[in-house]
Amino acid sequence: MESLINCTEEQQPSSVMTNSWSNQEACRSQKAKCAGGFVLVHAGAGYHSESKAKEYKHVCKRACQRAVDQLRAGALAVEAVTAALVELEDSPFTNAGMGSNLNLSGEIECDASIMDGKSLHFGSVGAISGIKNPVLVASCLLTEAQKGKLSAGRIPPCFLVGRGAHDWAVGHGIPPCPSEKMATKFSLSAYKRNKRKMELAEKMDTGQNQTKKRRQSSENENGSGCLDTVGAVVVDSEGNVAAAVSSGGLAMKHPGRVGQAAHYGCGCWAENVCNMNSYSTAVSTSGCGEHLIRTMLARECSAAMQSEDAHQALLEAMQNKFISSPFLASEDRVLGGVIVLRCCRCVEAQPSPNIQAAMVEFLWSHTTESMCVGYMSAQDSKAKVSV
Amino acid sequence: MESLINCTEEQQPSSVMTNSWSNQEACRSQKAKCAGGFVLVHAGAGYHSESKAKEYKHVCKRACQRAVDQLRAGALAVEAVTAALVELEDSPFTNAGMGSNLNLSGEIECDASIMDGKSLHFGSVGAISGIKNPVLVASCLLTEAQKGKLSAGRIPPCFLVGRGAHDWAVGHGIPPCPSEKMATKFSLSAYKRNKRKMELAEKMDTGQNQTKKRRQSSENENGSGCLDTVGAVVVDSEGNVAAAVSSGGLAMKHPGRVGQAAHYGCGCWAENVCNMNSYSTAVSTSGCGEHLIRTMLARECSAAMQSEDAHQALLEAMQNKFISSPFLASEDRVLGGVIVLRCCRCVEAQPSPNIQAAMVEFLWSHTTESMCVGYMSAQDSKAKVSV
Repeated sequence: MESLINCTEEQQPSSVMTNSWSNQEACRSQKAKCAGGFVLVHAGAGYHSESKAKEYKHVCKRACQRAVDQLRAGALAVEAVTAALVELEDSPFTNAGMGSNLNLSGEIECDASIMDGKSLHFGSVGAISGIKNPVLVASCLLTEAQKGKLSAGRIPPCFLVGRGAHDWAVGHGIPPCPSEKMATKFSLSAYKRNKRKMELAEKMDTGQNQTKKRRQSSENENGSGCLDTVGAVVVDSEGNVAAAVSSGGLAMKHPGRVGQAAHYGCGCWAENVCNMNSYSTAVSTSGCGEHLIRTMLARECSAAMQSEDAHQALLEAMQNKFISSPFLASEDRVLGGVIVLRCCRCVEAQPSPNIQAAMVEFLWSHTTESMCVGYMSAQDSKAKVSV
Repeated sequence: MESLINCTEEQQPSSVMTNSWSNQEACRSQKAKCAGGFVLVHAGAGYHSESKAKEYKHVCKRACQRAVDQLRAGALAVEAVTAALVELEDSPFTNAGMGSNLNLSGEIECDASIMDGKSLHFGSVGAISGIKNPVLVASCLLTEAQKGKLSAGRIPPCFLVGRGAHDWAVGHGIPPCPSEKMATKFSLSAYKRNKRKMELAEKMDTGQNQTKKRRQSSENENGSGCLDTVGAVVVDSEGNVAAAVSSGGLAMKHPGRVGQAAHYGCGCWAENVCNMNSYSTAVSTSGCGEHLIRTMLARECSAAMQSEDAHQALLEAMQNKFISSPFLASEDRVLGGVIVLRCCRCVEAQPSPNIQAAMVEFLWSHTTESMCVGYMSAQDSKAKVSV
């Protein structure tokens, strides 16, 4: 793996805004020749009001800074991506960790996962309650799995859910957090509002045919504002990539429902460059979990990134593997967004043969109204954000 | 979709036994021109003692018969595959439903999933307790998701875990079953034996370096006899395919651990013929859940089945996507098995243009010591089995 110890960042914004598709589809891509590492974060694909957008920009900046602090201290991609996620989860405005959406029973159950492009190991938790930072549990599962087998030859788990996940976390030194502390004024009032809306919808439908009722119910009410899964992708100074994602899930979801954020290949994906791959790639997704699971969007976007033209490849992947996917043929509206990072050894002439840089390309695309992203290289003094 | 209303079954066993790889790798394939539908079931890839093999043969036969009864009554593939799974789960000898492995806490937590090749819908439950037939919950989730949105535009779940999954099941008319009734003499004595083994292993390691301890622990003790996930693949009289899988998980797993049987793309896969696919394919896997998740083996095998030579394609998929997969590079032994079914319109001259048959190819392959499978067409008087 080449090291990225060199050079001033050379932002080459080849940004393109494409609006040729339905559903506000947009795709942006930029390139940066950089050393020391790079981070790209998102605070969800959905609808962002002006006041919320401001908060999201702030938290994206802080998350980038946290990851870059780690990178500068020599941390690996998987550690830096975890640090970014903790910051995103700690914000009471994002739908992850603190301030997550409440489920039908008024409880918070979170999903999170992380993938290390170097070892290709994966750690994931689903429907976990009473843990402030679900990504720390996913990260700990990944680390533990890398240590090899447990006593008596048992294979360590990569995916834990519910109460068992909570107890495993506490047993591995992650402190519990009372669930009531994780709810915010905002998430509690959203719960009450959603509950009234549901009761009203069900009242209006009383007496109608059950199937008809379900088909007729307002199809745009599943507020896209509730899709604010957070995530990040990182490349470190050695060129390793990592990706992570965390979510409180859909508002008013059934208890025990697990979304894409805990699902392998769906919420995040990371693969270092290898014999079969010319590029290292890392992807994190956001949107409606069921749509992202059934299309395995993170893995599909990662695979697409081996094409020469990353921008075109992402546009095509979003169109063919998501919007027009046969797996979602019965859906009236397909909701999702992705952030993507890819990099390769810099083939241009270097100032010295010992000094190498990596060409980092970072992209994002979404079918939702908006998506808030932030990015920063290890050499930047502050993060840039975009809604 | 062509209909398979015709012809006597014409078994053309092109069976090949290949032992050129490590880990007892074997691959068998057969062809049958048949009408009315076909089922292939497995009772796990692992190690089967002679007495256990006998029981497994019986249950595989009964499961085939249940599916064929459904097919003859005009049921769709997804209904027939569910019927086969219920029979496999009800056997106290298989590690699914009744008689499932106990986890570290002495509890039964099951995983199951089902995929419909026609609608491409998927239903799944993970770490569910107190339900005799987890596949019925997965199947019900699939059916409910096909009905469209819930009240107030909420998207129905495709994957539920733990207590929430149990409560959803009971709320949808699936009766609860006291956990103590699901444990058998066999599973309880295995639990006691495994617990003693674990305590002994941990005692022996006391005082040793933690990392060293974990690497040194006997690497062959994760008894492959504990990998007996069950599954089935079906094609119905209209040519629709479906696949399902169900598992009690690894013995002595951590509570909340979810394996491949609940994981999209890993435990089962089914896709009808379409623009992009020349063949309808259905796959069900068995083995070590963590290995099968990280390689997405069901989906990989399904994709491989679009090659002309199914036997060769499965051999290569098992070698390149599983045994030598970069995702399992750190594993000393890779444990898994698959059953695969593929079919296409029969292109040979038909007795009448209105009568069509399908050429069904069915294959199985495993890296474990043995794998018990059964198969039957709608025109057979009884099932055939193979260990």
